[in-house]
Amino acid sequence: MLTGISVVLIGGDPRQLEVIRKLADLDASVTLIGFDHLQHQWSGVRRMELSAEALENADAVILPVVGCDEQGRVDSVFSSGDLILTEELLDDLPRSARIYTGMSSRWLRDVCAKLRIELVEFLKMDEVAIYNSIPTAEGALMLGIQHTDITIHGSRCMVLGFGRTGMTMARVLKGMGASVKVGVRRRDHFARAWEMGFQPFNMSELPQQVQDVDLVYNTVPAPVLSAQVLSHMPHTAVVIDLASKPGGTDFRYAEKRGIKAILAPSLPGLVAPKTAGRIIAGCLAQLIKEHAVRTAPEGEG
Amino acid sequence: MLTGISVVLIGGDPRQLEVIRKLADLDASVTLIGFDHLQHQWSGVRRMELSAEALENADAVILPVVGCDEQGRVDSVFSSGDLILTEELLDDLPRSARIYTGMSSRWLRDVCAKLRIELVEFLKMDEVAIYNSIPTAEGALMLGIQHTDITIHGSRCMVLGFGRTGMTMARVLKGMGASVKVGVRRRDHFARAWEMGFQPFNMSELPQQVQDVDLVYNTVPAPVLSAQVLSHMPHTAVVIDLASKPGGTDFRYAEKRGIKAILAPSLPGLVAPKTAGRIIAGCLAQLIKEHAVRTAPEGEG
Repeated sequence: MLTGISVVLIGGDPRQLEVIRKLADLDASVTLIGFDHLQHQWSGVRRMELSAEALENADAVILPVVGCDEQGRVDSVFSSGDLILTEELLDDLPRSARIYTGMSSRWLRDVCAKLRIELVEFLKMDEVAIYNSIPTAEGALMLGIQHTDITIHGSRCMVLGFGRTGMTMARVLKGMGASVKVGVRRRDHFARAWEMGFQPFNMSELPQQVQDVDLVYNTVPAPVLSAQVLSHMPHTAVVIDLASKPGGTDFRYAEKRGIKAILAPSLPGLVAPKTAGRIIAGCLAQLIKEHAVRTAPEGEG
Repeated sequence: MLTGISVVLIGGDPRQLEVIRKLADLDASVTLIGFDHLQHQWSGVRRMELSAEALENADAVILPVVGCDEQGRVDSVFSSGDLILTEELLDDLPRSARIYTGMSSRWLRDVCAKLRIELVEFLKMDEVAIYNSIPTAEGALMLGIQHTDITIHGSRCMVLGFGRTGMTMARVLKGMGASVKVGVRRRDHFARAWEMGFQPFNMSELPQQVQDVDLVYNTVPAPVLSAQVLSHMPHTAVVIDLASKPGGTDFRYAEKRGIKAILAPSLPGLVAPKTAGRIIAGCLAQLIKEHAVRTAPEGEG
């Protein structure tokens, strides 16, 4: 339970509803800022304006998954007003408070460092990235079904990168009946991909390996699908790039060659907002609880 | 090879391109009717108007997957002209010729019976239905990912019917990590579903079984998802009905109850026209070849 813990949520999208629900279930004192259009009422949940008063007793502040921009602006689909964080506002937070965000802007990172407020970017946590790889792979599979004129079953698929998302993507494709090649750099990834029944190859062989692919999923945040590599790929191939913006594909060259290439980051919130929200809610509840236990006065932990 | 065999294609959609390609590869004498807008040229393929002359030497006539309507009208996405079959025209076919169509209208069935021309509805063949169940299941999975706000992974899915499409659908969902209940009537289907690791139940228990489902796929061409059954289902459930029109769902009641229900027949041509075309092409080539061998003068088979 989170009884007595004060959590402030500032803005967000439908994923935050699962976070609010979870925190309310665990009996936290929840304050919502920037949720004016939201009709639903939860017991123990109050609404306030963004102000020093709202922040001064917070144990935790939860920002949207995408955080705030370099001007401190926080987006909220539940409000038409402006939500702008400033250094002065954050200075009102107790120094034991933590700020949680999916990923942080440089501005927020700098301000938190200056004010000595702990900032947690939960999308970077292995655990969250692995859970999130499930809706990502389902969304990416959906795009693959939509944008090809063949079935995934029996197709020649390629997954670049065998990290948290790559492994899930490869497994999902194989489950559909595709033949799956996996491009890796690390020898342990090569071994694991082979053990799981995929066809691993070293990324240095990419130009040769792409010659007969139908569908390529990239998870590597580096320019791996260069013009040189794309020039070896069939015109009919489809590329779905899951790496963070700007992706790992030379989209200009792909278009020139007639290869359909789609940059598709942030799929979890699009294809499964409820599941994505539950993943975040479970993670945040755990983190807030652990932090409370660590910072509680002796004998109360 | 199909050397010397004369095949006439009348109208159709992009799936027929794979049929034309396959027949041309096998050296058949192919005549296209109603493909005026099609630019591509194949060697040994000629184009004609719909006429007695075009039909009088045919060994096989291939209609589109959906056949013709009750007035004999054949649709073609490759032509803006009218293509209308008449009893007089079909009477010009040699009596050894066969007409192939995915499914037939009553009119065509009656005319063929009267003229003693053999009509083959290839979508009804077990083999074709099993191959077609793959693009069907992929399209249905895509709809499930699109229309729910949760992941398929970890969701409670139900498949009604364990025939050619139901078995594929259940397997695909399980591969994605869903928990899959399968509603059956036959005891051998119950045994097979159990053997494959699904949770089979008898259709008589449907009202109880639907109480906690997230996603229901119906493949039974009978009103199984009645208002009474739907009234036991959560409001948040999604129904995807794969049975031929009008499906097996009381769509009026589903809408009233706020349950999202989608009638989605004919998915193969939509989500994977090339694979769907190859399935048909492979089947037709085989059927035409077998028929040619059987009807050839002795000593030439």
